[in-house]
Formats: sequence, structure tokens, C-alpha cells
Amino acid sequence: MDFEPAEFEHRTERAQQLMRAQGLDALFLMSEPEVRYFSGFRTLFWQSPTRPWFVIVPSSGKPIAVVPEIGAPLMQQTWLDDIRTWSSPHSDDDGISLVQSVLEHFSTVGMMMGRESQLRMPLTDFQTLRFNLTRTRFVDASPLIAALRFVKSEAEIALISAICSIACNAFDQASSLFSVGQPLRESFANFKMELLRQGAEDVPYLVGGAGQLGYGDVISPPDATPLQDGDVLMLDTGATLNGYFCDFDRNFSIGEPNDAVKRAHEILWLATEAGLAAARPGATCSEIFHAMQQVIGDGGSDNTGSSSNGNGNVGRLGHGLGIQLTETPSLIDWDHTIMEEGAVMTLEPSMAVPISDAGQNVGILVHEENIVIRDGQPQLLTRRAPRQMVNVELS
Amino acid sequence: MDFEPAEFEHRTERAQQLMRAQGLDALFLMSEPEVRYFSGFRTLFWQSPTRPWFVIVPSSGKPIAVVPEIGAPLMQQTWLDDIRTWSSPHSDDDGISLVQSVLEHFSTVGMMMGRESQLRMPLTDFQTLRFNLTRTRFVDASPLIAALRFVKSEAEIALISAICSIACNAFDQASSLFSVGQPLRESFANFKMELLRQGAEDVPYLVGGAGQLGYGDVISPPDATPLQDGDVLMLDTGATLNGYFCDFDRNFSIGEPNDAVKRAHEILWLATEAGLAAARPGATCSEIFHAMQQVIGDGGSDNTGSSSNGNGNVGRLGHGLGIQLTETPSLIDWDHTIMEEGAVMTLEPSMAVPISDAGQNVGILVHEENIVIRDGQPQLLTRRAPRQMVNVELS
Repeated sequence: MDFEPAEFEHRTERAQQLMRAQGLDALFLMSEPEVRYFSGFRTLFWQSPTRPWFVIVPSSGKPIAVVPEIGAPLMQQTWLDDIRTWSSPHSDDDGISLVQSVLEHFSTVGMMMGRESQLRMPLTDFQTLRFNLTRTRFVDASPLIAALRFVKSEAEIALISAICSIACNAFDQASSLFSVGQPLRESFANFKMELLRQGAEDVPYLVGGAGQLGYGDVISPPDATPLQDGDVLMLDTGATLNGYFCDFDRNFSIGEPNDAVKRAHEILWLATEAGLAAARPGATCSEIFHAMQQVIGDGGSDNTGSSSNGNGNVGRLGHGLGIQLTETPSLIDWDHTIMEEGAVMTLEPSMAVPISDAGQNVGILVHEENIVIRDGQPQLLTRRAPRQMVNVELS
Repeated sequence: MDFEPAEFEHRTERAQQLMRAQGLDALFLMSEPEVRYFSGFRTLFWQSPTRPWFVIVPSSGKPIAVVPEIGAPLMQQTWLDDIRTWSSPHSDDDGISLVQSVLEHFSTVGMMMGRESQLRMPLTDFQTLRFNLTRTRFVDASPLIAALRFVKSEAEIALISAICSIACNAFDQASSLFSVGQPLRESFANFKMELLRQGAEDVPYLVGGAGQLGYGDVISPPDATPLQDGDVLMLDTGATLNGYFCDFDRNFSIGEPNDAVKRAHEILWLATEAGLAAARPGATCSEIFHAMQQVIGDGGSDNTGSSSNGNGNVGRLGHGLGIQLTETPSLIDWDHTIMEEGAVMTLEPSMAVPISDAGQNVGILVHEENIVIRDGQPQLLTRRAPRQMVNVELS
């Protein structure tokens, strides 16, 4: 298992305190992050959509697992005792009657229904459950789960810190990985292999781009376009260790970058400084957002408002990080979540490259660091990017 | 884009034929495979659960995309024309009013609600949509989508074939990748890097195990246990190329394997032969299942019934393959889906290692190949595993 049983006991106790305060008799969970958070059950088998998986957290006692037989041996290695299984895939009852037999003892059942959640079971099966459980009320528990997962334990922080270090080590090899004339696809493959060599367990997320005036967007897969002299190359990675993510990028210049790109990089570096200064216990997401946004707004065009530049408005300047590549909360104007010690966040300012010639095909630049909120200054989990972009042709 | 526009036109036309036959005015889709299937929109950004994404397929004309602004540049590269965006994440309307403005023109709307599906949007947002769209009926379209995706185009088959070849090439390097004393975690890392070196785009899935009498289950992540003389080592990979998966495993012996393991490997190899002989257009999943199951049942213990051996009953002997690691249908007793030319399937017989001493900690063995159904014999997409396990210490 990735953690001692005490870690899961503590998570469960915290959940149960919140459940009692909110009048919830049980949590009914089925998505990978929540099942793993309460049980420790970690597998890549979630790639297969075939089978549903369930964990029910009662208001006292250990969580109960209701899982396909194929998962029984792994679930038996967790701290859970009550593991109920069925042969899946099933022709007409893929775990539903088994789940029902657990949930029928509870009146008010919390589920993930709100922001950033999804229903990882067939909708028809959920409707069957609702129809059969006439005395059970299903309510939204996603704010409860978000509050719980927002603050990480030191054991969780140690894992995120370790994967951040591994990715920093991989980025340090940039000059041996990237070069003029290299197809972008090859740059990505080289970097992914370097992450694994440096000790990353997996690289579920690697995106980026390259261009003379920034990149077109931040979510496209790489193509075969060769890197050119004067390009800025960005790689943004979510690598994992024991299923915990880093999520940050680095920008490199391939030869001498355009002045506008240099200027954008400087602004984003300073915006990150402002974010680091603002990220304190008690500060809200909105406050940190505005601290960064003011630097971007003062120094360049603001790409967080309209998407008129066509560059794929990111919409926020950072987010939570942990079991998932992105977690709540968001560093955005309307999110008033208050920072607490132990919260792990990304600071991710982005902007359109500020040039005067409106006819040019302007790209964007993104800068990202990972931090944990501490009493006083935040702790950087990533090694701070240099103020000036690393030139891979010179280093 | 990964395919010519004609590929997407053809998919959409086939869908619309089925929609008309079933009285559907539109399909309302939101999961990665369906969004990609109809638009060509491919990105790892789905790793982030923050934003919902929608594609609506009307009964005539091109699909309509309703996506966050961050995805607009990539969606604009697809064959779609009608792309509607909003700034996401949003405080209180994450695309819902925009989706509503599209769906309100349709009476009967198909969605993925059945087997192997999930609702990739917040349940509360879906309830809002249902509440507001009083004249719209939402019905299950998952059988329609399954029928559509079941038969692959030659362009899709070429991609699956290519990634199967890449993975075969990686497995061919086994003797330089695996050795006695090596921690299992390192064996996995070596293999993952070899897959990337051989040209895999990504390795979203790599599981396996090792042991003297088979492995404990087939979904656990690797630990630090060193490979021992006499172990059988299994790696099962879902690597990708342009987002299309292979899904097969290979077993290797580390030194001389146990006789019972050799016997199980032989039985599974013969079961696969029976599957290859049975997999013809017109045959049902159930018939192919029974052809393989009879060889397993005759030759060893049957692990597809009860899970009393505690080894994580897989429940089926193969499945569809393509955009996802596992797709419908299942090679299982109750699945009567009829094979058609162009269907891509895995043959995946598994069994408990047959030993007489009930006191021993018995593992399982799994064998897997990928095929495409053709007129007559199926075409192997994987290079057939040798009848005798490869001994990595001797080769």
C-alpha cells in the first residue's frame, strides 16, 4: 500500500466528522480518486470502462468496498475489511443489487454531484438504484469531499514533492533532449523517456507546444513540425509517483527568442512572484488570482477575459493538485476558497504574447509552479524556474 | 488530425442512419471516446476533470461542439464547423445554458446511459438540463454507439495494427529488459521505456505480475519484489498510437518454469487457437467464449465461474478494442453480439495454474492476442505468441 493504515483512518475520521455535521449517514463513492482516497486501492485498470467500482463510507466504522471479483485480491491488500464482490461484467445486475443491500441501511447518502464530478456508473443503473431505494435521499457531497482533499497530509506532500523533483531533474536535461530541427513529437517522446529514467512512475499527462511567438494552445498533442531557431518550446507535464501528480511546465528558447516572448516570460515570472507572495493561510483563491492578474494586466494583454485572441482562454491562473492532475479549488475571480496549511496548489499564469502588430499570429505563454501552503511563506515543491528562459542551444 | 474528414463523415452518416431508424433527433455525447469518435478532438487534457465537453450529433448535418474556450483552437482544427464556447471553469453555468440552447430544438435525444458508460458531467448540471428541457426526452443510445464503434474502418485497423507491431517489437527485447534479481517495478519501467523507443505514443496501461505458480492478479501495480529463478513474468500493455490501443500480454519464464505453469501456458495457447478458429463473421461472442472455455475446462481448473480461488475472476475471455483499452462486446456466456468483418477483438483466456496440492498459493495465467474479424479466418494484429514461453535467461 502507498500509505500506512493511519493515513486512511485519519481521512475517514475527518470525513465522518463532516458527515455528522451535515447530517449524512453515508458517502456513496465510485470515481477513481475517491475510491483510492478512502481505500488505497490503486490500479491502472480504471482505463477499462467495463466494470463499476464502489466504496461506501458509513458515518462510523471503516468504509465498505463493493467491487468486481477481478479486483478482490488487490482490494484485500488495503486496510478495508468488508469487501463484497460480484462476477463482472454481468448480464443484468452489475453490482447494483449488492450496492442496494448496503445503501438500504442509510437514509441520507452523499454523492459526488457537483463541480468537477462525474457519475462513473451507467445512468440507467443509478436510476434503478434511486427507484428501488425509496427511503434513501441522495444529496451532493462534492463540497465535503473537496474540503477534505484540499488539505494534504505530510505523507501526501512528500509524494508530490518527490515527483516534482523528478520532473525538475528531467527538465534539467533539456539541452540534451531538445534541438533545432527536431520534430516536436520527438521532443515529447525524449522528455517522456527522461521522466521515466529519472524515476517517474508514469506520465499520464504531457502537453505543450512551440513557436516563434508562443504556442497556439496548451492542450494539443505534438505533431511532426520541426523545432526552429527562435522558437519557444513549452512542455507541461503531469507525471506521477504512487498515483500522485506534479503539474507544471517549463519554457525553453531554441536559439535567441523574440523580444515579445522574452517580455511575456518576464511578466509571467513576476506574476508568479506575486502569487507566491499572496499565497498564505487565510488568503482566498480570488485574492491570489488578482495578485497575479494585476501583474499580467499591467505588463501585457489580458487573456483571461474574452477569447477574442482565439488562443484558448485557460480561464484561471492555478488550481489544486494531488491525486488528480487538477483538483478544486481554482485560482479565479469567483472562487473564494480560503487557503489552509497543507493545501497543494499550482500557480499558472498565462498570457497572450504582447506584440503591437495585430496581423501576426500571436501565441500564448504559460508559466507554472507547484506549492504547498505553509504558515507564512508557501513552500515551493518545484525548483523555481529561472527568470530568463533557458536557451537549449547555448547551455 | 488523425483521419481524413471522410472518416468522420462516414461515422456520422452511419450514426444518422441508425438514429433515423430508432427515432432519435440527436445524440448528446460528453465522454472522451464519443467526443473523439465524432469530432477527431484528441487531447490528454481529459486528465483534468474540471471542465465538461459536449458534442451533439443531429439527425442530419455535421456534429456541433459545445466546449470550453481553452479547447477552441484544437476543436477548430477538426472537421467540425459549428463550435460554441464558453469561459470555463464558470461560477454557476459551466456550459449548461449553451448546451440547452442546442438541445431545445430536439424532441428525442440519445445519450450514453447503459453498459460501460458514465455521465461525464456533474449530475446536478444534468438534472438542471432535464428540468429545463421539459419537451425533451432523453433515451439510452449506448447500444447504437456500441454497434457503430464495434466495426472499425481500415484506417482505424491500420492504427491498431501499427501499435500492436510496436508492442511486439518491444516484447522481442525481453531478454535485454528483464533478469533475475530485478525488482518488478524496474522490469515495468524498462518495458515502458522500450515501448516508447519502439514508437508508442503513450502507455496508458501496463499491468502484470510474477511468481513461481503464476501471478496473484492482473490489475495490481508492480512492487519492489525481485524476479526469481523459476518465476513466470507477465506484462499486459495498452499502448497507444494516435489514441488507438493495443491490449495484449506476454508471459516470460525467468529460468526454468514450474511444470504446472508450462501446462497452463500450453492450455491457454490452445484455447487461443480455438478462439481463432471460432472467430468468424456470424459467430456470436458466446460461441467464441465457449470454444475457448471448453479447452480451458478440459485441460485445467475453470476460473471463470466462482472466485473461490481468490484470484480475481476476470469474468470474460476477451473484448472489443480500439479507442478504449476495452470496448464492448465481451466474450462471455451471456453476450450474443454477432461478429462482423472489421470488428477488432482481444482473445484473452485465463485460468488458475492447475496443481494438485491445494495448500499451495496458486496464481493465475493469462494469455492475450488481438485480432480483426475478416471474411474467413481472423487476421492477427499481434504476432502470435510462441507455444512455449520465451525463457529470458536462455534467449
